[in-house]
Amino acid sequence: MLAETLEQGRALADAALERLLPAASEHPVSIHRAMRHSVFAGGKRLRPILCMEAARMVAGSLPSGVEDLGAALEMLHTYSLVHDDLPALDNDDLRRGRPTCHKAFGEAVAILAGDALQTHAYLTLSRLQCEPAARVRIIEEIARGTGTINGMIGGQVADLESEHAQVDFKTLEYIHKAKTAALISASVVGGGLYAGADGEAVEKLRSFGQRIGLAFQIVDDVLDVTQTSEQLGKTAGKDKAAEKATYPALFGVEPSLQKADELAKCAGSTLVSFGNRADTLKALANFLVERKK
Amino acid sequence: MLAETLEQGRALADAALERLLPAASEHPVSIHRAMRHSVFAGGKRLRPILCMEAARMVAGSLPSGVEDLGAALEMLHTYSLVHDDLPALDNDDLRRGRPTCHKAFGEAVAILAGDALQTHAYLTLSRLQCEPAARVRIIEEIARGTGTINGMIGGQVADLESEHAQVDFKTLEYIHKAKTAALISASVVGGGLYAGADGEAVEKLRSFGQRIGLAFQIVDDVLDVTQTSEQLGKTAGKDKAAEKATYPALFGVEPSLQKADELAKCAGSTLVSFGNRADTLKALANFLVERKK
Repeated sequence: MLAETLEQGRALADAALERLLPAASEHPVSIHRAMRHSVFAGGKRLRPILCMEAARMVAGSLPSGVEDLGAALEMLHTYSLVHDDLPALDNDDLRRGRPTCHKAFGEAVAILAGDALQTHAYLTLSRLQCEPAARVRIIEEIARGTGTINGMIGGQVADLESEHAQVDFKTLEYIHKAKTAALISASVVGGGLYAGADGEAVEKLRSFGQRIGLAFQIVDDVLDVTQTSEQLGKTAGKDKAAEKATYPALFGVEPSLQKADELAKCAGSTLVSFGNRADTLKALANFLVERKK
Repeated sequence: MLAETLEQGRALADAALERLLPAASEHPVSIHRAMRHSVFAGGKRLRPILCMEAARMVAGSLPSGVEDLGAALEMLHTYSLVHDDLPALDNDDLRRGRPTCHKAFGEAVAILAGDALQTHAYLTLSRLQCEPAARVRIIEEIARGTGTINGMIGGQVADLESEHAQVDFKTLEYIHKAKTAALISASVVGGGLYAGADGEAVEKLRSFGQRIGLAFQIVDDVLDVTQTSEQLGKTAGKDKAAEKATYPALFGVEPSLQKADELAKCAGSTLVSFGNRADTLKALANFLVERKK
């Protein structure tokens, strides 16, 4: 059942990305090849799936065209990965088992490809099939979730600054919430807004998204410790090498996984008023913490 | 008269940027300091001024809140400069006589500051005071003008690829139109849309913007040849050093300036139906080609 949701969601998101991104043959070709190299690198499409399932829960069925919103979220997620992998940042050669964008296309094109994926996400959002009033609210929500104040970029900066430094729990939690949970939360809220959610429903979705986003990042940090590079499809153990502050580093592996489980359960309970319509989102929340590959 | 327009427009744009950008004291401070370092580096605010004057021409007086649209355009222009200056691209140490963002804050923060300026521009656009339907059209116009298909990033990529290569006139014109004219045109069109311009007026503004944008870039390339680094506030002669294709390299200085003059005149004539309301935009077009500092 959940496997089907994941598979169908992924296929929908992939088809939308294929349709929305400029063709690799469009001039100038290097940038379009670089954008597609990174977008079609076998991502799980978690953000699109969460977005689409939130929209389905609110509307009762999947609203037409919501996969374009999902595709825009994946473009934003991919842009952040492309820039994160750059030599000046994480300096990573591998991502999902393939050469990172700058390894394949050079640093200059990788910087511009990341920029272009962000730009193309907003172009896509400006053209969504929902009402203009919903579109601008979705754009605002996503721009905040990926910005510098409690958003993705803010978390990346704090993460950079935490390397080789003594970091307390408050800072660690800020990094996780901002770097990962904010965009995941914006994905869920965006899906709700697309489906016409009212203020109360939006706040429930936001709280659900923040909790599963934090749980997701905790599990990610645990996997970085417990898995090999082959299992991960990217360099393992790099948090420790960079002396990064992580949940497993601060609390150990088992207590971290316990915390993630609690968060997922707690996230599910914020959706109680949606009755069994919330079953898929709850199952997704569990999936995020159960994935130990 | 024009001096007053430039001065007032600049002050309006500066005040909006000051109000809209996160304070330098906001956490994490390094990114906000970097964003402000590059935004408040003495820019002429040409795009905001063109945008505001287009809105004034269409509406008959300056529409309330249009300076926020101007500020968003300046954030986008600044993000492109920050990334353009990076070691992997133009590798420039000076911009407007001050250290470039990566020189002052390091490469990692400069990459993220550029990203954040783009994000913050869209946040700002999502909150403009015009109707949601106008806002999404403005966002679409700007995302196209800064994207990879005939937009700013497309021009930057083609520009990179033209270094140390034999470039024909067609490629040179593509680079100029995409790299510079597309955002200038989107600025003028955006201002028109904010003021409620109809389809015909929008197309006139688009054609005006494309012409002055091309003229502007030609003059920029001429100044790179004829001025010193002190006069420019940035490294002079770098196009020649990089063997870049430019108008003066292909046609010589005088024919290039003549071409720029023609374009400015031609641009003015596209606005004839606006009568003397178009006087300020026409004066701005002349100013762009007359500035030889």
